[in-house]
Amino acid sequence: MSNEIPYKIYLNESEMPNAWYNVRADMKEKPDPLINASTHQPVTKEELREVFCDELVKQELDNENRFIPIPEEIRNFYRMYRPSPLVRAYFLEKKLGTPAKIYYKFEGNNTSGSHKLNSAIAQAYYAKKQGLKGVTTETGAGQWGTAMSMACSYFDLDCKVFMVKCSYEQKPFRREVMRTYGASVTPSPSMTTKVGQQILTEHPGTSGSLGCAISEAVETAVTTPGYRYVLGSVLNQVLLHQSIIGMETKAAMDQYGIKPDIIIGCAGGGSNLGGLMSPFLGEALRGEADYRFIAVEPASCPSLTRGAFAYDYCDTGKICPMAKMYTLGCDYIPSASHAGGLRYHGMNPILSKLYDDGILEARSVKQTEVFEAAEMFARVEGTLPAPESSHAIRAAIDEALKCKESGEEKTIVFGLTGTGYFDMFAYEKFHDGKMENYVPADEEIAQALAKLPQI
Amino acid sequence: MSNEIPYKIYLNESEMPNAWYNVRADMKEKPDPLINASTHQPVTKEELREVFCDELVKQELDNENRFIPIPEEIRNFYRMYRPSPLVRAYFLEKKLGTPAKIYYKFEGNNTSGSHKLNSAIAQAYYAKKQGLKGVTTETGAGQWGTAMSMACSYFDLDCKVFMVKCSYEQKPFRREVMRTYGASVTPSPSMTTKVGQQILTEHPGTSGSLGCAISEAVETAVTTPGYRYVLGSVLNQVLLHQSIIGMETKAAMDQYGIKPDIIIGCAGGGSNLGGLMSPFLGEALRGEADYRFIAVEPASCPSLTRGAFAYDYCDTGKICPMAKMYTLGCDYIPSASHAGGLRYHGMNPILSKLYDDGILEARSVKQTEVFEAAEMFARVEGTLPAPESSHAIRAAIDEALKCKESGEEKTIVFGLTGTGYFDMFAYEKFHDGKMENYVPADEEIAQALAKLPQI
Repeated sequence: MSNEIPYKIYLNESEMPNAWYNVRADMKEKPDPLINASTHQPVTKEELREVFCDELVKQELDNENRFIPIPEEIRNFYRMYRPSPLVRAYFLEKKLGTPAKIYYKFEGNNTSGSHKLNSAIAQAYYAKKQGLKGVTTETGAGQWGTAMSMACSYFDLDCKVFMVKCSYEQKPFRREVMRTYGASVTPSPSMTTKVGQQILTEHPGTSGSLGCAISEAVETAVTTPGYRYVLGSVLNQVLLHQSIIGMETKAAMDQYGIKPDIIIGCAGGGSNLGGLMSPFLGEALRGEADYRFIAVEPASCPSLTRGAFAYDYCDTGKICPMAKMYTLGCDYIPSASHAGGLRYHGMNPILSKLYDDGILEARSVKQTEVFEAAEMFARVEGTLPAPESSHAIRAAIDEALKCKESGEEKTIVFGLTGTGYFDMFAYEKFHDGKMENYVPADEEIAQALAKLPQI
Repeated sequence: MSNEIPYKIYLNESEMPNAWYNVRADMKEKPDPLINASTHQPVTKEELREVFCDELVKQELDNENRFIPIPEEIRNFYRMYRPSPLVRAYFLEKKLGTPAKIYYKFEGNNTSGSHKLNSAIAQAYYAKKQGLKGVTTETGAGQWGTAMSMACSYFDLDCKVFMVKCSYEQKPFRREVMRTYGASVTPSPSMTTKVGQQILTEHPGTSGSLGCAISEAVETAVTTPGYRYVLGSVLNQVLLHQSIIGMETKAAMDQYGIKPDIIIGCAGGGSNLGGLMSPFLGEALRGEADYRFIAVEPASCPSLTRGAFAYDYCDTGKICPMAKMYTLGCDYIPSASHAGGLRYHGMNPILSKLYDDGILEARSVKQTEVFEAAEMFARVEGTLPAPESSHAIRAAIDEALKCKESGEEKTIVFGLTGTGYFDMFAYEKFHDGKMENYVPADEEIAQALAKLPQI
């Protein structure tokens, strides 16, 4: 093993980025704007302010400023668990016998267990600064809810989490972590909101969905004085906050003169993917560098690879503004056999645009392939990965094996977004050979897309 | 907050210790030797070799060599998750309003979730080097079993874990992590061993104990060709391996000119406590420095504060050699209301001797006080701690609050041995107000001590 590059590259705290990276500044054609779900006109700042904090509305709509300074209070909090390590996967390379050099940026060394905390603390900070009492949000796999609970606890804000019911029941320990941080957790759909009541009336036995939990959280935010809604992915502001991942990765690589050939991220709503890639995408868009960008999504929820690029609702209740994005339709719910997150029906508008423009590649992987990669990674690299992150591991391994065949010494970097300590139920299924690979039939996808609003 | 000391001090990989620290070399009076449970004569190397690997027997009996080189293969593995950070608890200090400076050495950033991996990998390495097929061991809270599974997976060794039955049932996800690393996990007592059969006959409904699981693991090791037994605490060899914690801590503190006044560790069998303290104890024993050393144990299993210093059996089946240690008697089992680890009846012989000599202090804490400290720590420092580690947090907070009263700017360092992600059942009990504080009555302790063997 080489002695030149350490196993883990840690930036010094003084080398941590002072600004987030806004990749929209580098895009010649900007993403299409959010539009009002009733009027179909571009949403105004005023409309968005009813849902989101003022400063976050500004960030959501900012297509121009490349660098957005990170407030000192947020940088202080980041120091609690950042800089995160950029790890050279020496053990994995050896196991695969590949000439490729594999790196991963590991975001799981904090109690939320994932990168979600990077945006949660920013959103909590702006809520506090605006003098709010609290925030509402939804959580699926539970990482975002945990992150938001931690962030709210730090700024002494109330945090109301709507947790997708099947996840609430399958992951009681996730719920308990949120309680440790003082959050209230309600299984969704619930009777506490109109939209929840309506969904429960129409589908009495439903185990919930992300789109439905979002609707409940938004309704609660706009009807409760002193509250706003926060979201852990999909939004442009989230990509912005998550760019800290890419900024640190790039700084660490630059220090050691490492230039990646392939950058890989798992793809749900796009928060980690966009965050890791942002500064690299900026270079590519400015023509300063040439990278391959690969988004990896579950075969059971293939918004990029099989969805349509269209204006769609962001939530089941159709309360939120609409976004132009790759989508399977707001009613699409991945099969119950799908484990873990990455189950949102759409994809962040910036990434959707870049995919449509051919800058970003995408592929889908089946979940048993994902868990095979996860287990191999856990054994050789010592970190038991989250199912979500393992999509990126799968693609990184596949690319490294191609290098083994071709003899190319490519440099691959991927985002290891989090740990799987609260996902052992899914691992158990995998070990017991009970994990299914659901791939929606063409007809199912066609039916879902046929329901897309005509705009 | 001071800008001089970073939030987290990471050594460079090149600054990692190349040797473990054997504190016995600094002791003028050595700990009393292990004795054969039948003959009461000091055990010979040959006797120990039936149970432990040859190289580990040497380490177990070595009272002379201060530094034991760490083999390169082990150092390579350590780089997977080490050096671990020494964290300045700025957020906790602020919350407490104390002039004290608090540091913690955080050992939870690996999938085993604790410091146990430091010794597991060493024990697996020597087993592999000796050409063994596999090892047997026991696990209570599950951290040691997980660590040993990871270590065995790395060296391609078979790993048979006997898991205390109540823990096996309460922590299915711990079991699942072990399976991810290819270990077999058997609830103890089991029918696979003679000692297990005997215990089940005498106590049909028993939920098991550490002492019983140890007996089953030892029996399996000595009756299965190509196997040896490994243990995660209590032994001198384990303290030796865990000294990597103290060595790194001291190196990091020396770099920044930090001199601790108080060093605190949670106390079960003594592995973390002794590991963190070893090089500092060495300095104190040589008269080169003056530190306060505090062991913190659960009020429900108070081996140091209420036990006797005597020769006792290390396991329920009375198979293992006997050790001179602080003990509550090998049949002592903490109340079922006790959550988490730190439930062994005895204490490592080196630490027992140092406690008897007045070098080491000890105190016991009740578990609701422990969980109060744990929750406060999780909220301000962002890491949800293991119940075991939280005993040390409790004492560190108490010492910092004393400083607040006296105005003293003491420097406190404690071991944050691990994370509590698999202990949310206990946190739930705490949140629901259902956690009990069991403190054994004087009579119960007296009865337990009356059963100690007369040697």
